[in-house]
Amino acid sequence: MRRSNLFVPTSKEDESTAQVRSAELALRSGLVDHAGAGIFSYSPTGKRVLDNIADVVREHMDAIGAQEVSLPKLQYAEIWRKSGRWAEFEGEMFAFENREGKDMCLATTHEEPMADLVRERVRSKNNMPLALYQIGGKFRDDHPRNGLLRTKEFSMKDAYSFNSSEEALDEVYQEMREAYIEIFEKLGVDYAIVDADPSSMGGTASEEFQAPADVGSDEMAYCPAEDCRFGTLDFDETDCPECGETLVESNSIELGHIFKLGTRYSDPLDLTFDTESGEEKVIMGSYGIGISRMIPALIEQRNDDDGIIWPEEVAPFSLSVVPLNENEEIIEMAEEIHDRVGPSEVLYFEGDTAIGEKFAESDLIGVPAKVILGNTFLEDGELEVEFRDGGREFYEPSEFFETYA
Amino acid sequence: MRRSNLFVPTSKEDESTAQVRSAELALRSGLVDHAGAGIFSYSPTGKRVLDNIADVVREHMDAIGAQEVSLPKLQYAEIWRKSGRWAEFEGEMFAFENREGKDMCLATTHEEPMADLVRERVRSKNNMPLALYQIGGKFRDDHPRNGLLRTKEFSMKDAYSFNSSEEALDEVYQEMREAYIEIFEKLGVDYAIVDADPSSMGGTASEEFQAPADVGSDEMAYCPAEDCRFGTLDFDETDCPECGETLVESNSIELGHIFKLGTRYSDPLDLTFDTESGEEKVIMGSYGIGISRMIPALIEQRNDDDGIIWPEEVAPFSLSVVPLNENEEIIEMAEEIHDRVGPSEVLYFEGDTAIGEKFAESDLIGVPAKVILGNTFLEDGELEVEFRDGGREFYEPSEFFETYA
Repeated sequence: MRRSNLFVPTSKEDESTAQVRSAELALRSGLVDHAGAGIFSYSPTGKRVLDNIADVVREHMDAIGAQEVSLPKLQYAEIWRKSGRWAEFEGEMFAFENREGKDMCLATTHEEPMADLVRERVRSKNNMPLALYQIGGKFRDDHPRNGLLRTKEFSMKDAYSFNSSEEALDEVYQEMREAYIEIFEKLGVDYAIVDADPSSMGGTASEEFQAPADVGSDEMAYCPAEDCRFGTLDFDETDCPECGETLVESNSIELGHIFKLGTRYSDPLDLTFDTESGEEKVIMGSYGIGISRMIPALIEQRNDDDGIIWPEEVAPFSLSVVPLNENEEIIEMAEEIHDRVGPSEVLYFEGDTAIGEKFAESDLIGVPAKVILGNTFLEDGELEVEFRDGGREFYEPSEFFETYA
Repeated sequence: MRRSNLFVPTSKEDESTAQVRSAELALRSGLVDHAGAGIFSYSPTGKRVLDNIADVVREHMDAIGAQEVSLPKLQYAEIWRKSGRWAEFEGEMFAFENREGKDMCLATTHEEPMADLVRERVRSKNNMPLALYQIGGKFRDDHPRNGLLRTKEFSMKDAYSFNSSEEALDEVYQEMREAYIEIFEKLGVDYAIVDADPSSMGGTASEEFQAPADVGSDEMAYCPAEDCRFGTLDFDETDCPECGETLVESNSIELGHIFKLGTRYSDPLDLTFDTESGEEKVIMGSYGIGISRMIPALIEQRNDDDGIIWPEEVAPFSLSVVPLNENEEIIEMAEEIHDRVGPSEVLYFEGDTAIGEKFAESDLIGVPAKVILGNTFLEDGELEVEFRDGGREFYEPSEFFETYA
């Protein structure tokens, strides 16, 4: 994409987002725009980042046989009253009457509607295990806090499993847990796994995936050893029980939460299947990942004085191309890179903005590599690639296109 | 995908969706589930169809340089009061107070928030033309009607253009119009283009893309000649002014609507740019396509006694594979097709359901072609492909894989 065509709605941080590095960088780089207290618009680069995160999550959900669906965000009160959560969520859920005078709400989570969708369609052990998921907007009337970290509208992946026994649930729960580990590794986010209190969802067991960060809404003690991933809410523990390292305390960010729900929802919603000895209750699990929250979590962990440092899987563009002057050979090569690597992968800084500004903007946005076309190219015919995290490499053009095109 | 793994939540039509062929088929084939008055859940097949439609639209928006963004569905009243539409939409828009006591709503359309996003970022003629679009949920507190045709939550593509003059708007409007024609051709939907009343959006000119159908919320007279596409709201006209054919009256379905908005929104929202002679108002256009409504429109136009007849671009699977018996060679070939054409493209009817039921379900769901593996394959080594619209072809395996894999 040519930089002159890309809409980048940059802004300075404002009062409500100040002191939060992720919000400051997301606003200054034009990734998002602050549309009001607790709501943000995603710009073209922000939408790309959001889609890249969702694609990684989707790929791993599909790989374990979960099927993507899309349930209405708008819900009638009835099933929420049946489960007892209409009252429980009061104040936290946007609720209103529709023109026919019926109570409706914006779903904060979808255990009830999912159970409703599956009821009568899962009639035997053979129909299970079944896992369904969706990726999309959720709404919660929280007090906005910490910029992008706590908002009134956000995007989540929420998955639900339906199982014929506790053992079958354990198996799916482990598969989801493994998938989460793979997802977070691929997204390049640092995290710990914390035994958590499942009571918020009424389940029997749960674990949180928490990202250590300077800001956040949660606290944990975690093991700083690479790849250990142990975390705990028991602040009396001082040493990691898995590797012995001294635990570190942090204001961490919840990235994901997986729950064994047991029959908490199938009981009140009458979700049953037939066995030889009569009807049994379906055993449920639910599994969430904050898609939009991954953005501030990654920025909090991956930034320097120049801006954001996206991992490759997430970056809005793979490469920037910066010609240092208007020499014909240089411009030809810049155009060739733009066309062959592809306009959707390349951010091409054409035009007569000062070189320093181009470099600074590419680094602020967080593009993982810059191809710099100047004297090195004219004299040696080599392409200079400067990586966002500091490295530098030189490529013959053919070698470059083999690597990137 | 193996049929035994695919979650297909079939149901019979109910009172509120009876008499509407598209709703009946969408429910019976398990494409959607009726989650309450005016809300529907999309099943795994329904989600695939929705994504396929969105992908075609996205491809054509990107091709004309429109950039994808994502704005919050949740909006504060303030900018809607500025434009005067807070009062205008009353009753039709879901509106409520948040916990801080501020009026909020679910956006029915995004002219105001888009103008707000662009303000101060489009400061000169050189920043334009700019076109932004998004694909996602919209909410409108309509009385539910005609199954999937009028719902309280639905999915739309909405695009907005920002221009420095009426002439520049005309140019983008024509590009959008051409893109719409290409999109509807590719989606295999029959439609007419109707000069419409732009007053609903306060614009200066608009055209609707209307699909002739037995049910719908609109009426038009249209030219039945192939590829003519003329439609009118003037029921006194009897002959097509473009080709002379006698016009036909229909309860048609609105698929898209494109508007020249002029300064209707940039005036009250103060969306200006600098010129040598001072500030001028930005000239806007807006361009919508009903993504989820395309599903009932296509089903209304493309069905027979056996079920839905999806066009290839939209179908949830390209192929069904139906082995007629458990012969080892047959099963091997079925597995090979499933693996090589790909589990995301193939619906593989394994298992011991009756053959007739497998055929009937594949046709009801609307898969465009069935590969039938029986004696023809064992005796001649040929794959029999039966197309949903009636044709039949035989392929050598190598030839088949060249075509489909």
